[in-house]
Amino acid sequence: MISSRQQVTDMILVVKVQKDLKWSQVAEAIGLSKEWTTAACLGQMTFTKQQAAVVGELFDLSDEAVAWLQIAPYKGSLPTAVPTDPLIYRLYELVNVYGTTIKELIHEEFGDGIMSAIDFSMDIQREADPKGDRVNMVMSGKFLPYKTY
Amino acid sequence: MISSRQQVTDMILVVKVQKDLKWSQVAEAIGLSKEWTTAACLGQMTFTKQQAAVVGELFDLSDEAVAWLQIAPYKGSLPTAVPTDPLIYRLYELVNVYGTTIKELIHEEFGDGIMSAIDFSMDIQREADPKGDRVNMVMSGKFLPYKTY
Amino acid sequence: MISSRQQVTDMILVVKVQKDLKWSQVAEAIGLSKEWTTAACLGQMTFTKQQAAVVGELFDLSDEAVAWLQIAPYKGSLPTAVPTDPLIYRLYELVNVYGTTIKELIHEEFGDGIMSAIDFSMDIQREADPKGDRVNMVMSGKFLPYKTY
Amino acid sequence: MISSRQQVTDMILVVKVQKDLKWSQVAEAIGLSKEWTTAACLGQMTFTKQQAAVVGELFDLSDEAVAWLQIAPYKGSLPTAVPTDPLIYRLYELVNVYGTTIKELIHEEFGDGIMSAIDFSMDIQREADPKGDRVNMVMSGKFLPYKTY
Amino acid sequence: MISSRQQVTDMILVVKVQKDLKWSQVAEAIGLSKEWTTAACLGQMTFTKQQAAVVGELFDLSDEAVAWLQIAPYKGSLPTAVPTDPLIYRLYELVNVYGTTIKELIHEEFGDGIMSAIDFSMDIQREADPKGDRVNMVMSGKFLPYKTY
Amino acid sequence: MISSRQQVTDMILVVKVQKDLKWSQVAEAIGLSKEWTTAACLGQMTFTKQQAAVVGELFDLSDEAVAWLQIAPYKGSLPTAVPTDPLIYRLYELVNVYGTTIKELIHEEFGDGIMSAIDFSMDIQREADPKGDRVNMVMSGKFLPYKTY
Amino acid sequence: MISSRQQVTDMILVVKVQKDLKWSQVAEAIGLSKEWTTAACLGQMTFTKQQAAVVGELFDLSDEAVAWLQIAPYKGSLPTAVPTDPLIYRLYELVNVYGTTIKELIHEEFGDGIMSAIDFSMDIQREADPKGDRVNMVMSGKFLPYKTY
Amino acid sequence: MISSRQQVTDMILVVKVQKDLKWSQVAEAIGLSKEWTTAACLGQMTFTKQQAAVVGELFDLSDEAVAWLQIAPYKGSLPTAVPTDPLIYRLYELVNVYGTTIKELIHEEFGDGIMSAIDFSMDIQREADPKGDRVNMVMSGKFLPYKTY
Amino acid sequence: MISSRQQVTDMILVVKVQKDLKWSQVAEAIGLSKEWTTAACLGQMTFTKQQAAVVGELFDLSDEAVAWLQIAPYKGSLPTAVPTDPLIYRLYELVNVYGTTIKELIHEEFGDGIMSAIDFSMDIQREADPKGDRVNMVMSGKFLPYKTY
Amino acid sequence: MISSRQQVTDMILVVKVQKDLKWSQVAEAIGLSKEWTTAACLGQMTFTKQQAAVVGELFDLSDEAVAWLQIAPYKGSLPTAVPTDPLIYRLYELVNVYGTTIKELIHEEFGDGIMSAIDFSMDIQREADPKGDRVNMVMSGKFLPYKTY
Repeated sequence: MISSRQQVTDMILVVKVQKDLKWSQVAEAIGLSKEWTTAACLGQMTFTKQQAAVVGELFDLSDEAVAWLQIAPYKGSLPTAVPTDPLIYRLYELVNVYGTTIKELIHEEFGDGIMSAIDFSMDIQREADPKGDRVNMVMSGKFLPYKTY
Repeated sequence: MISSRQQVTDMILVVKVQKDLKWSQVAEAIGLSKEWTTAACLGQMTFTKQQAAVVGELFDLSDEAVAWLQIAPYKGSLPTAVPTDPLIYRLYELVNVYGTTIKELIHEEFGDGIMSAIDFSMDIQREADPKGDRVNMVMSGKFLPYKTY
Repeated sequence: MISSRQQVTDMILVVKVQKDLKWSQVAEAIGLSKEWTTAACLGQMTFTKQQAAVVGELFDLSDEAVAWLQIAPYKGSLPTAVPTDPLIYRLYELVNVYGTTIKELIHEEFGDGIMSAIDFSMDIQREADPKGDRVNMVMSGKFLPYKTY
Repeated sequence: MISSRQQVTDMILVVKVQKDLKWSQVAEAIGLSKEWTTAACLGQMTFTKQQAAVVGELFDLSDEAVAWLQIAPYKGSLPTAVPTDPLIYRLYELVNVYGTTIKELIHEEFGDGIMSAIDFSMDIQREADPKGDRVNMVMSGKFLPYKTY
Repeated sequence: MISSRQQVTDMILVVKVQKDLKWSQVAEAIGLSKEWTTAACLGQMTFTKQQAAVVGELFDLSDEAVAWLQIAPYKGSLPTAVPTDPLIYRLYELVNVYGTTIKELIHEEFGDGIMSAIDFSMDIQREADPKGDRVNMVMSGKFLPYKTY
Repeated sequence: MISSRQQVTDMILVVKVQKDLKWSQVAEAIGLSKEWTTAACLGQMTFTKQQAAVVGELFDLSDEAVAWLQIAPYKGSLPTAVPTDPLIYRLYELVNVYGTTIKELIHEEFGDGIMSAIDFSMDIQREADPKGDRVNMVMSGKFLPYKTY
Repeated sequence: MISSRQQVTDMILVVKVQKDLKWSQVAEAIGLSKEWTTAACLGQMTFTKQQAAVVGELFDLSDEAVAWLQIAPYKGSLPTAVPTDPLIYRLYELVNVYGTTIKELIHEEFGDGIMSAIDFSMDIQREADPKGDRVNMVMSGKFLPYKTY
Repeated sequence: MISSRQQVTDMILVVKVQKDLKWSQVAEAIGLSKEWTTAACLGQMTFTKQQAAVVGELFDLSDEAVAWLQIAPYKGSLPTAVPTDPLIYRLYELVNVYGTTIKELIHEEFGDGIMSAIDFSMDIQREADPKGDRVNMVMSGKFLPYKTY
Repeated sequence: MISSRQQVTDMILVVKVQKDLKWSQVAEAIGLSKEWTTAACLGQMTFTKQQAAVVGELFDLSDEAVAWLQIAPYKGSLPTAVPTDPLIYRLYELVNVYGTTIKELIHEEFGDGIMSAIDFSMDIQREADPKGDRVNMVMSGKFLPYKTY
Repeated sequence: MISSRQQVTDMILVVKVQKDLKWSQVAEAIGLSKEWTTAACLGQMTFTKQQAAVVGELFDLSDEAVAWLQIAPYKGSLPTAVPTDPLIYRLYELVNVYGTTIKELIHEEFGDGIMSAIDFSMDIQREADPKGDRVNMVMSGKFLPYKTY
């Protein structure tokens, strides 16, 4: 019996190692971006029946596991509030160092409101650079204004 | 006597309200991006002597305050580890929900290492969209590989 | 010199005591709901120039204070992550006890996504009841679906 | 041997996936609201003998599991004090942003006291809206006054 | 300007030292129990206009301070979630060691529900004992049952 | 192999459900109060050899489990510093709201010192009341004075 | 106006620096051990009227400050739950590393119960040692047994 | 397979119950103090090959377990930063209440530096007392001065 | 099935005990420093295919385990934010006591920026000393300057 | 009146800005390393009378401030347990990522014990490197073995 989505994520990670699969291959197989696909495989998004079937086949998942993939999961992928992994910590540091800056600039441009983290997409690319290649992340989220009522 | 950079940041914020200045105007005055300029004004970056003089004039700062602007500050702009402000929380949520995804994709493309939060730049723009304009954030950080030794 | 919005909130609270004003009177004066008006006076929302002028007059605020009211504030009104005040704790308890229930029911009705806390309104009323009057809170937030990309 | 109510909750969630049951169907079967029924199935409420029997049949539970359903559980459904799941976090954010507002308005209407989280009911509905459907949550809790003694 | 109830509490504590007042005297003066009166003076309860006037006279408070006493305060009297003061910690320890016991026994007697901390009174007395006098605390709170809906 | 007292507590809870035992019956069987007995069964007190034998028989425990009951346990029955269960939280809230009050009143009566949580007993009873029955908790702890040396 | 015992502690520390007083001199002046005396001066114990007068004279305290010294203080001398000062951390480390050991040995000798931290005294001495002098701390606390009831 | 020292500690605790061994007997068997021996058995110290063999025989440990006893363990015996067990909490309380006192007195006697928690020994004895026996703990740690460089 | 890198680390630690291997031997076998090698074996670095094969042979690992060694791990080796183990705590204490000092001196020498923890190497050696041998740790990290943009 | 060492640290930092002093100049003036001197100026070490006089003159400190410099301070220079400043966080990250590695290697070389953080010195230098200069930190601490007793 599988008692949580986390167990399905663990299975996917194990099989990915064993079959030497790439996230981009999985993304191609279900016809979506590698960003959304990876997040979904890591238990942060919900697959449709069809997508789940493709993922199930790629990772040799049982029917029960495939069913779990179609359930909206309890989201949040980090074991601690402040992440210890250096790569993920750098993202947290950006929020900590630049958080108030981003807030000021969005308010200056749009007024009071937020950038949606739901109506959101992300694109991660290698940016060639003679002084050392760079990671280029583009985030796009709908601006949602606070309204009076 | 000014006993911390935070006090200088507070002065800048107060005068900005009173003079109705925009961050983009400050950025123009010192000839750098609005992202770096705002972060510096909010106490997260270090100004050169010349930049500090310009900022000092714009915000009517004392010589002592202008001196503080040239000292490397203790960085981190958030009062709590998990930010309560909705706009900044959304950024934290992105790290929490997408953190392991970003880690997987950077490792898939570059191998083990991180995206630098120091050799880093950011650009925030309005992205026109008929269904509601969007915030577009581009982050670019040098990839730093872990090396064996 | 006023160095934060919190100070303006403190002023409003003090004058409200002294003048024996009611939040509903303030709301009437600016022509909006008592819920939004109170949140704004407590430093959680941004006033327009006109609204700020009305509030300034009601609470005898200085021009500087009135300027602060028009700035998008750093939101979050609680001194600790788990609130100690019994009235506010009961709201936290509802999130803790019913949180997963609300999640399940929204997903069952709408699929994966969230109820917006930005495109949101609230209405608090007395509900007469022979066994003891009740507090009736109606919350309405736009459903925002997670989309694939 | 089942050593906690959580294990019964896990069983219910697994079978719900496998049998593709809806919370509203379960609610109908025991003749109560979907809100109370879901909370009870998720381990936050106590079933009577009769209700437990119905639930046991729906989810193919053992007698031991059915016995557990009749025991008052240790309540609290969230793994961390500040929830990471975006849908549940929005509820927490509402408490954080609007908590002092709700406190002020209840006190203005009723005097010092609280809204009960025990003598409480909740109703969640879809609210049709041309700009995008909304989640409508009505909460009703008895006002409990602090009394002098 | 007094900007919070805490400041009024501080004033009361200072004057109590200077005038060598006893809580029981204050309680007598307003005609209520020493338990409720002390809690109210320490900023945890709300005084009526008349009670506030009496307290104001006893502690030489200004009109502004007397006004604050009539406002429902943000409750919670401890500086940390786990109290460090040995006397108060022992109370916390009782909750920690006996908490699940009290829960079991209340449920055994009353079914699922809670003991109210609002419809509540307390009485603290010296209990003479040849082996050393004891503190006797009687707590009485209305039982509030969880109801189905 | 049983590796902790918690496992014995779990066994007791499971069998209690299956045999439909009441804590008061267990208390009667070992000839002590229901309060002490329940605390001991929940892993907070140490049984004598004789008491452990009685408990072992009632709950069908193995010899190994009976041995564990006679070992002084690592006490503390709550999974988090601030309890989430509503019934137990109300006790915590009483400590938070009334903690400084109880401290003031004990010091006023006895001088500096504490109420012992070790030389302590507790009695929980139903208190009939036409407006709704109440929980009546009597706590009695020896006063321990701080002495100079 | 002095609004807390902490302020009196601060005054004592400042004057001690200026007058170059030693804790042992203060102890001698009030005729008690240096351990109790220091703890009391640091705001952890309560002085009698006579002792307070002596301390007041030594440290040039105002009458108001002398009054504060006679009030039972809110105890706990550390700014964080885990102390950062290396000397005090070593004490915390001893509790962490040896805590379960001390528990086992006290229970082996005395049965279930605790060493009182109230009916307690402490003596700190230099212990001459050719390999480097040592700190010798003797702690003596009454054993308090848990009793059945 | 044994995957951590904790598992060996658990085995020792279980067998100690079953064989009714005393820590003082174990100490005698390996020829060291009961304080060091207990700490080592509880996973806080490292045994030599010979000592491990003796312990292995006393507690019927496998060769693998005996090997683990000779590895320097990850130390720290408490499940939470602030211990919940009343006996161990009293030690923590002593650090909290007397921590700054001990610091002042060691500095007064020795200058700036610390009492070592490594070059350290401890002795716990029953101290007979007509008013109730006492726990007597003697701690001896080398003074380590901070040096300039 | 191995479901995480931690399990592989556990296997390595167990076999290291059983085979009495030294980290320096492992380092020699793969031709890198003992510092990097140990960190990698403890789950903090990523092995190449060849290195993983060598490690697999030394520690009798399965093919699946060897595959895991080649995956970039979620880094961070400590179970709590403030480490409890005395050896590791001393390192944390150095960061706490000397952190601001190191920051000041690096900024004085290099300007605003950081010492990389990625482009980093470390060397730990015994330093003979007549007064007692010392641990000598040399850390070398690339300076990364903050740049304006 | 100066009520804490922190205030003296603040004064030093302000004057350092105003006089454009370097830590190395201060170190030279008192004839010790820049590492110890900076730590002492930042409130982490204790100055002798003579050293304090020199520092007092350099930074124009009052006699009272100079007195404070000679008192052993409450150490710990960071505002939060996990530092937010990127430069200092990298040091914390090294402890987190390499902590268990350093522990293993010290134990392999020396047996069970620790590297002293008290009998300790540190040297920070620029290390020229064609690929970008590096920070070179040498830490030297006495090994302190755990001894049996």
